[in-house]
Amino acid sequence: MKILLITYDNCDDSEVLYPYFRMLEEGCEVDVASLEKRVINAKYHYKIEATLLPEEIRPELYDGLIIPGGTAPEKLRQNRYIIDAVSYFMDNDLPVAGICHGQQILISTGRLKGRTATCYPGIRDDLINCGANYVNERVVVDGKLVTSRRPEDLPYFMREFCRILKEKN
Amino acid sequence: MKILLITYDNCDDSEVLYPYFRMLEEGCEVDVASLEKRVINAKYHYKIEATLLPEEIRPELYDGLIIPGGTAPEKLRQNRYIIDAVSYFMDNDLPVAGICHGQQILISTGRLKGRTATCYPGIRDDLINCGANYVNERVVVDGKLVTSRRPEDLPYFMREFCRILKEKN
Repeated sequence: MKILLITYDNCDDSEVLYPYFRMLEEGCEVDVASLEKRVINAKYHYKIEATLLPEEIRPELYDGLIIPGGTAPEKLRQNRYIIDAVSYFMDNDLPVAGICHGQQILISTGRLKGRTATCYPGIRDDLINCGANYVNERVVVDGKLVTSRRPEDLPYFMREFCRILKEKN
Repeated sequence: MKILLITYDNCDDSEVLYPYFRMLEEGCEVDVASLEKRVINAKYHYKIEATLLPEEIRPELYDGLIIPGGTAPEKLRQNRYIIDAVSYFMDNDLPVAGICHGQQILISTGRLKGRTATCYPGIRDDLINCGANYVNERVVVDGKLVTSRRPEDLPYFMREFCRILKEKN
């Protein structure tokens, strides 16, 4: 299986590292897309190489999408190619995993209306204002959309995302 | 299942975080033992609370042991209760996962003679000198002993450790 991970500088270390390693453990191939094609520096220490620019993403090649948090999503949501790519996953009912501030990108797609989801408490009001049903739980699954709140939720976030990926195949 | 994780200050962030979250994802209960009963500070940013002192470890309560790397193992291997506890896992053929410098503790138990294992390249000679068969691979499985070299090996390290835990039960 092939997974797309979208992130940028100042992403949360564990929210990139855990899903990335977890997908490799599962035997998936993972492509990292970002605003620049270079090594991306997480907030504290972790580094990961981005090999795709937003305009190079071909979402039809992937089985699922992961959007980690940090301050990266605020930058990424301003790029229309990022929004187009993420919208493709949502419109085609593909597995999408968003954690923490990752949901800022999902909000900007305009595809969360009527969907049940969670996010970092600081952007809860934005999630509600875009028409989503906000739930304060460590992981929320709505169809193939999996959302979590913060790094501490990662074990449960990835448990559900892995389950959904397996059901798909 | 119940897992023991032994670490201390200046452990490698990802080598604690990934196995800890991975065990929680698997539905395990994880106890953290350290030289002091307090919040342990990893090298860069990650923090984890230790709730057991070396002399309080009851190894017979656990289904497996994880020893992350960093400079923590050099401190931990000097404590005889740590060595006794780790030796119990080795002597009773319980699943043991050591990564990077975690193998310094395994070396100090004197239980690696004739066992096939890997470790961080900087302590390779010590692993050889204690009588182990050193192999330079991302993950080495010898019975219920799983060893890896460095953070990049974590996905494969945990894949094998999870497999062995499942076989055990």
